Amino acid sequence: MSAAMKLVNGIPAEQINLADRGLQFGDGVFRTIKVVDGRVIWWCEHYAKLVADCAKLAITPPSEADLLADIAQLSPSNHTLKIIVTRGETARGYVASADLPANRIVQIAPLPAYAPELATQGVRLRTCSTRASWQPALAGVKHLNRLENVIARREWNDASIFEGLMFDRDDNLIEGVMSNVWVLLDGVLCTPDLSESGVEGVCRDMAQRAADYIGIPVLVCKIARSQLSRAPAMWVCNSLAGLLPVNTLDQQALAIGACHADWARALQQLMQIDSE
Amino acid sequence: MSAAMKLVNGIPAEQINLADRGLQFGDGVFRTIKVVDGRVIWWCEHYAKLVADCAKLAITPPSEADLLADIAQLSPSNHTLKIIVTRGETARGYVASADLPANRIVQIAPLPAYAPELATQGVRLRTCSTRASWQPALAGVKHLNRLENVIARREWNDASIFEGLMFDRDDNLIEGVMSNVWVLLDGVLCTPDLSESGVEGVCRDMAQRAADYIGIPVLVCKIARSQLSRAPAMWVCNSLAGLLPVNTLDQQALAIGACHADWARALQQLMQIDSE
Repeated sequence: MSAAMKLVNGIPAEQINLADRGLQFGDGVFRTIKVVDGRVIWWCEHYAKLVADCAKLAITPPSEADLLADIAQLSPSNHTLKIIVTRGETARGYVASADLPANRIVQIAPLPAYAPELATQGVRLRTCSTRASWQPALAGVKHLNRLENVIARREWNDASIFEGLMFDRDDNLIEGVMSNVWVLLDGVLCTPDLSESGVEGVCRDMAQRAADYIGIPVLVCKIARSQLSRAPAMWVCNSLAGLLPVNTLDQQALAIGACHADWARALQQLMQIDSE
Repeated sequence: MSAAMKLVNGIPAEQINLADRGLQFGDGVFRTIKVVDGRVIWWCEHYAKLVADCAKLAITPPSEADLLADIAQLSPSNHTLKIIVTRGETARGYVASADLPANRIVQIAPLPAYAPELATQGVRLRTCSTRASWQPALAGVKHLNRLENVIARREWNDASIFEGLMFDRDDNLIEGVMSNVWVLLDGVLCTPDLSESGVEGVCRDMAQRAADYIGIPVLVCKIARSQLSRAPAMWVCNSLAGLLPVNTLDQQALAIGACHADWARALQQLMQIDSE
């Protein structure tokens, strides 16, 4: 018998009830986590963010013990681990009782096959015309309402483009379709303020911690589209790809930042530390 | 054997695959339709809107024949009919091929038990502090990314309040949590411009057609929050509740508009016409 790849509330399953509010309304949150040699990278941080995101939406979070038991049952080695928590199941309509039992879906899949040289030679980015929505009630949360990312990702079909950048109504940089963004401006590593739009990824926090560790100044701030043309270096990051320098944004060539090797090494070290 | 209440792609089912993008990303659209004595109210309009919404998201719409066969199989009498169309099933990640087969979910449920006097005596509304998001790429579409409606609906737990109003970043009125809104201003029936936020419901279109029919001027425009205090009358509408006058907004008492009876009757007549 092949091992289970997907669990719903701890039980091997391929399906979920049609009454689940994740399907009805995108009423839930998720996590995408890298597993290397059986080690769940940044587990503590991912679990803390899952709990914080659930709290913002008033969804009952699963216990850490239940999730760790699920992960043990799936027994990932080198995999992508995806956790979805939905508010649970109700009939039609937005109302849900406060004590509704949440559904947790834990699944593993192959890691994406990123070429190793991306981490040193950099990746190519484009600008998306799809904007990041303004919604302070949901900003920062990795929730299941991801249609704008889906629509933005449809803007290109060129495998040489790694990621697309999304801007808000006011032309401020927000994020990549599947990543957070860093821009070197006047010697400071700047990453967009995500209080009104976008998703605060765990890798963004860890990259900030790594930058602090090696003494590069970091700033969370508004970054106008017009500032990008004078940026000497940029990066994108997420939990699966890690920290990747940008070599091209549309027609603009960018250098690999002088601090890249040290910063990436410091982040790599943070991946080695067993946070469990 | 009891008759099926839910179909997935025409087959009685209670569950959907975990790979469905409706669950993963809210990547789909839906319709909520009233069925009275076996008659599917405003079917042509609902199907046209479903196709238009699918087109905006580049989702392959189901054929009208398939949906009508599903409805015939469910054989609703006096029911709520809900149709969900998702982009289909993929592994993790935002990318989906253009020819992905969509999933269609058709289900029936009891009609909500609205007291008949609401239609003449009016309903009580509150103002939500949750804002309607700015997202022109999705505005107007009845898509499955409905977390802001869920969050807004959590703001009250008082059964005497029928609906909550949502405003955008600029304090313009957008919609109710589950309805569209009409405001009488200077003798004109105004309904919010939904090109940057909100959902364009079929009942809003039909109410506009009914107003045209009886010769009341209608305007789709920006409506500032500050204009509501001088509005003599307001209405909310959706496909299940029809057109309901507002008697109270927060602490503000509103009269039942003088045109209400004629307008509601004209809309009622539009419900009698068999659009199939």
